[in-house]
Amino acid sequence: MGSALALAQRALGRVAPNPAVGCVLVRDGRAIARGWTQPGGRPHAEQEALRHAGSDAAGATAYVTLEPCDHHGTTPPCSEALIAAGVSRCVVAMRDPDERVAGHGIARLRDAGIEVVEGVRDAEAAALNAGYVRHRREGRPEVTLKLATTLDGRIATRTGESQWITGPEARSRAHLERARHDAVLVGSGTAARDDPRLTVRLGGGAARQPTRVVLDSRLRLPLTHALVRDAHTVPTVVLTRWDAPSDRTAALNDAGVSVAHLAPDDDGEGTGVSLTGALAALGSRGLTRVLVEGGGRLAGALMRADLVDRLIWFRAPSLIGGDGVPAIAGAGVTGLDAVPTFRQTSTIRVGGDTMETHERVRESGCSRA
Amino acid sequence: MGSALALAQRALGRVAPNPAVGCVLVRDGRAIARGWTQPGGRPHAEQEALRHAGSDAAGATAYVTLEPCDHHGTTPPCSEALIAAGVSRCVVAMRDPDERVAGHGIARLRDAGIEVVEGVRDAEAAALNAGYVRHRREGRPEVTLKLATTLDGRIATRTGESQWITGPEARSRAHLERARHDAVLVGSGTAARDDPRLTVRLGGGAARQPTRVVLDSRLRLPLTHALVRDAHTVPTVVLTRWDAPSDRTAALNDAGVSVAHLAPDDDGEGTGVSLTGALAALGSRGLTRVLVEGGGRLAGALMRADLVDRLIWFRAPSLIGGDGVPAIAGAGVTGLDAVPTFRQTSTIRVGGDTMETHERVRESGCSRA
Repeated sequence: MGSALALAQRALGRVAPNPAVGCVLVRDGRAIARGWTQPGGRPHAEQEALRHAGSDAAGATAYVTLEPCDHHGTTPPCSEALIAAGVSRCVVAMRDPDERVAGHGIARLRDAGIEVVEGVRDAEAAALNAGYVRHRREGRPEVTLKLATTLDGRIATRTGESQWITGPEARSRAHLERARHDAVLVGSGTAARDDPRLTVRLGGGAARQPTRVVLDSRLRLPLTHALVRDAHTVPTVVLTRWDAPSDRTAALNDAGVSVAHLAPDDDGEGTGVSLTGALAALGSRGLTRVLVEGGGRLAGALMRADLVDRLIWFRAPSLIGGDGVPAIAGAGVTGLDAVPTFRQTSTIRVGGDTMETHERVRESGCSRA
Repeated sequence: MGSALALAQRALGRVAPNPAVGCVLVRDGRAIARGWTQPGGRPHAEQEALRHAGSDAAGATAYVTLEPCDHHGTTPPCSEALIAAGVSRCVVAMRDPDERVAGHGIARLRDAGIEVVEGVRDAEAAALNAGYVRHRREGRPEVTLKLATTLDGRIATRTGESQWITGPEARSRAHLERARHDAVLVGSGTAARDDPRLTVRLGGGAARQPTRVVLDSRLRLPLTHALVRDAHTVPTVVLTRWDAPSDRTAALNDAGVSVAHLAPDDDGEGTGVSLTGALAALGSRGLTRVLVEGGGRLAGALMRADLVDRLIWFRAPSLIGGDGVPAIAGAGVTGLDAVPTFRQTSTIRVGGDTMETHERVRESGCSRA
C-alpha cells in the first residue's frame, strides 16, 4: 500500500476533479504491475495496472488507495474490470465518498467472491485525498496556506525588504508543491506589487500548470502584468465583486482571463470578496486543491473565516523581530480558546531551511464553510 | 565519550563559574568508573571517577569532555591525579581555554608517557561548554532566549490573553532548562505584570535554584512580589541604572535582593540599561549560562545588540495571526543582509508542542559584546 500511495502522489494536481489514485498488483509476493490516475483523470489507476499485467492479473492481489469506482462513465467501472481480470483479493485504503460509489464498488467485488480488506493506511489515503473528499462533500477545494518566513514568522523587514527569505532549495520545493495543486491563489496586493508568474518552473520538462487565481475585488490587476499577459497559455481566473467595473472585466476577458463575479464580504479587514463564495466558485470549476501563496491580508482573512485546512511552512533559520512584516495579517483571534489548532504532520530539511506541514484540527471534523 | 558528555550535562547549572565536565574510565572495553563535576565545581569529574575506580584505574583509558586541569587550586590538578593513578590513555573532547590550562594539562599527561587523543566529539563538547568558554573569553555569560509561542511566534492574542500557550509537558521541560542554567533573566515589565517566581519546580527533590535576575532600569519591581519576598532563600539580582532611586535600592537590599547599578543605554526602544554592561555584571558574579524568559521588549533589545547566542523555542500547534503579540519586539532589522541567522540544532516533540534549539551563527565566530 505504501507503494500505491506513492504512485497516487504522482497524479496530484493533474486529475481534478477526479481523485488521485494508485494501484499495485501483487502475485506470489511480487509486484507485477503498477498504475496511477492519468492526467485529466482517465484512465484510472486500476485500469493502468490491469493493462500492464495482462493475463498475469488472474489470482493477484490489488492494492488500491481508494475504493474502485462502480459507475459507468466513459469507461466501464474499475470494479467490473478487476472482476473480469480474475483478481482474487483487493486491499482498499479508504472508501470513496462519491455517492455513486460509496461502498458499492466494494460490495460488487465481494459479491463476485473477491476478498476485500478495508482501512489499510487509511489516514495517509485520507490526507492524500483530502482535496477530492472535501470537494465531494462541501463543494469547495482543500485550502493549503504556503508560508515562507523567518523563524519568527516574518516575511519582510520593517522597511519592506522581502526577496528570498528562504533559499533556492526551498523555492524549488515550493514549485513542486505548486505542481501538486490544481490552483494557486494570491491576493490582489501580491499580484499587483510582485507581478508574479505563479507557474511551475522545474527542470525536466513542462509540467501541467495549475490554474492561477487572483482575488481582486476592485480589478486592480494591471493588464501588463505576467498573470494577464500569458493568460492565453496558462489558465487564469480573477475573482472579483459583482460591482467591479465592467470595462476592466471585458479587457481581462479579451486577454484570456476568466472573471468570476462574487458577493462582497462583510469583513472590513478582509479581501472585499466573500471567501466562502470564492472557494465555491473554484469548486464549481472542478478545482480540489488550492495553494495560497500570499499575501498576509489574504492569509489573515482565510484564518478568520476558518478556511485554512493545511499549512506548508518554509522557515529560514533567521529572526527579524516584531517590527517585521508578519506572514499572516490580523486573524481576529481574541480569546485563547478560539485559537485555531493544527497537527504537525511532517518536518524536513530543505537546503538551509525547514519545511513543515500542519493540518488543521477541527473539533467537529467539519469546516464552517 | 557519549557517556561522558551525558554525565557532564548533569552538572550544567550547578557548577558556575566552573565548567561542567564528565569523565568515564574504561578498561578492557568496560566502563569501570564515572564522574562529573560536583555542585559548586568540586570535586572535578576526573577526581570523582578516579575515586570510584580506586586501584583499578591503573592501565585504564580516561574519556573526558574537557582537558584536565593543570593548576593547583584547593586540590592538586587532575592532570597529576590521572598520572598518579596510572591511567595509560586519555581521550579529550576539547582543550580548556582557561589560560592556566590551555594545553598545559595535555602536555603534562604526554610528558608522563600517557597517550592523549584530542578533538573527539569536540563540537558537542563545545556546545556543552559554550557558557564556560564565553565567560572565560569575553567575561559574559552565554545567553539563551527561551520562547513559548504559537507557530507564528505569538505569545498572546491582541487582547493580551496569554496564559498557557504551550502545554504542561512543555512547561515542565522549561523548568528542566531553568535548572540547567546559572541564572534566569526577565525584563521589568514581565516581572511586574506576571509576578513570576522563576524557581525550578520539578518533582523529585529540591534542585539548586538558578539566580533570578530582573532588568529594571527604574526599580519598578513591587516589594510585595514573589521575586522580592523570597529573595532571602533564592539568590536574586536586580540590574538597574546608576540614577535609580536610592530608597528603592535600600528596600530591595533589606529584602535580600542584590542590586547592581549600571550605565544607561542609548537604545530608545530598549530596556533603559546597557545590555553589554548587564551581561558583564552577571559575568563578574560568575554566571556563565543565562536563560532569558521574557518579555518581548527585552528579547528585541538583546536581538538588536546581537547578544542572543541560543534559542530554546517551544511552539504550540496553533496560529494567532499578525494582530497577536510577538515574542520578540522590534529588533530593528532593516536590510535582509543584516538578519541574524541561526543553525537549528535539535527538534523534539514535547507533549502536543515542539521544542526547537537554534544556535546563533556569527560570521566572525565572535560576538560583538
